Amino acid sequence: MTAMLVNGLPSNCIHTEDRGLSYGDGVFRTLRVRQGKPLNWQRHFAKLRHDCNAMVLDCPDQDILLDEICQLSANRAEAVAKIIITRGCGKRGYAAPMTGSHTRVVNCQPLPQYPAELYVAGIQTQVCSIKLGHQSALAGIKHLNRLENVLAASECHKAGLHEGLLEDEDRAVIGGTRSNLFLVRHGTLHTPELSLCGVAGVQRERVLDWADQHATECKIRRLQITDLLAAEEVFLVNSLFGLWSIREFPGYLRTEHPVATRIRNWLDKDEV
Amino acid sequence: MTAMLVNGLPSNCIHTEDRGLSYGDGVFRTLRVRQGKPLNWQRHFAKLRHDCNAMVLDCPDQDILLDEICQLSANRAEAVAKIIITRGCGKRGYAAPMTGSHTRVVNCQPLPQYPAELYVAGIQTQVCSIKLGHQSALAGIKHLNRLENVLAASECHKAGLHEGLLEDEDRAVIGGTRSNLFLVRHGTLHTPELSLCGVAGVQRERVLDWADQHATECKIRRLQITDLLAAEEVFLVNSLFGLWSIREFPGYLRTEHPVATRIRNWLDKDEV
Repeated sequence: MTAMLVNGLPSNCIHTEDRGLSYGDGVFRTLRVRQGKPLNWQRHFAKLRHDCNAMVLDCPDQDILLDEICQLSANRAEAVAKIIITRGCGKRGYAAPMTGSHTRVVNCQPLPQYPAELYVAGIQTQVCSIKLGHQSALAGIKHLNRLENVLAASECHKAGLHEGLLEDEDRAVIGGTRSNLFLVRHGTLHTPELSLCGVAGVQRERVLDWADQHATECKIRRLQITDLLAAEEVFLVNSLFGLWSIREFPGYLRTEHPVATRIRNWLDKDEV
Repeated sequence: MTAMLVNGLPSNCIHTEDRGLSYGDGVFRTLRVRQGKPLNWQRHFAKLRHDCNAMVLDCPDQDILLDEICQLSANRAEAVAKIIITRGCGKRGYAAPMTGSHTRVVNCQPLPQYPAELYVAGIQTQVCSIKLGHQSALAGIKHLNRLENVLAASECHKAGLHEGLLEDEDRAVIGGTRSNLFLVRHGTLHTPELSLCGVAGVQRERVLDWADQHATECKIRRLQITDLLAAEEVFLVNSLFGLWSIREFPGYLRTEHPVATRIRNWLDKDEV
């Protein structure tokens, strides 16, 4: 069961003319909640505010959002909260109205139970056949236009995989279908540069902080599959599953993931 | 006032967990209705079916859609109907459910009244600053991920323009923000090739038919702004406004549009 609020009122309904439906004209965030408190809230809220600004959407007050998440997750030790902010209803036509009320949807669901094996042994994956298009005006923003992710995730789901690797149209590796990617080589971390596509998540930011605090260099740069094949470790991170090492994909097999394990332990311990 | 049906029932509400909202996971069409009868229906329905197939969505029966449009537009001589088909509600997560009910939204609104001057003199336009990304997996489909169009149309709206010209990331001209483009040179029509981005609309198809029936060659190819500057005429078409000649954009001024006028007369007369 999902508990939901729309503009602060219990509802599971948005208007059929909402621009979030018509055009995907909005942004969202998905985050973990523990005892009514969203984990890494300051980072999530900063990203939400950034994305709203980038799309010229009013960002709700953070106290309102915190209060709504707390209300909805009251009966659960652990939950997943999703926040959607859309440009609200508009007249037909693509052009965004200069003014107008926005729509705020907050919902809470049970936390998915990922098999422990995925954390112990790492995951099997593959490179998705769809390649991400470039759009610098929207890159990095967690907006509601997610058909590329839908196509990629559907392909992986059919193959029985928990995650897939996404390349862009120039065959640069961008990340997982719903996660950011890091690789370890010669004691250095590397993660894709995301100015043309992809989403820079909160967990990615936390890994960059880990590197900073542990005197480990992290290079943000163009990566290709050949870089992954040459890496000692490759891992994926997001705010829900945390960190999964990649055990295997065609041409790649790693059974030990010491650096990723240290980072995961730190991420788990340092949740605020 | 908009009259609406959701899955056949009077409603202005879709579920907050609908994948149309969450990911833009759906398709749509916008069409003119006269005396309860959608114009060029066979073409619109064929495109809807094509787009549903491309996205692995069940397409509703055309009799259901016709009946709903007729119901909603009963009191209007002229109207605009919009059909949205989404993948319905799903569990959280990008992967499309293998089965599940879809959501069908049909609404009717008054036909917008475009100033007569736009048809007589042609429109002023500009090249939009946003460039369309390439995505061959989605090109041509009228899906619900339309943020590029929103950004482009918003820019034009602020500039007081009725339409803008869209280029792709390689600076090929793709069309207007909500329309397809043609140019006339030495008695030949040219229109952009749309395999990497853009939407191939019903009105574009009708202009191709006009060319065919009037022994006029139409080349579907890569076009650039320099090709427009060298053209005798440039015009935009869509199912709502019909055909607008371009009178002016930076470096271009044409006050006579004889070919476009002949095509518009044919398009208007031949509506079925």
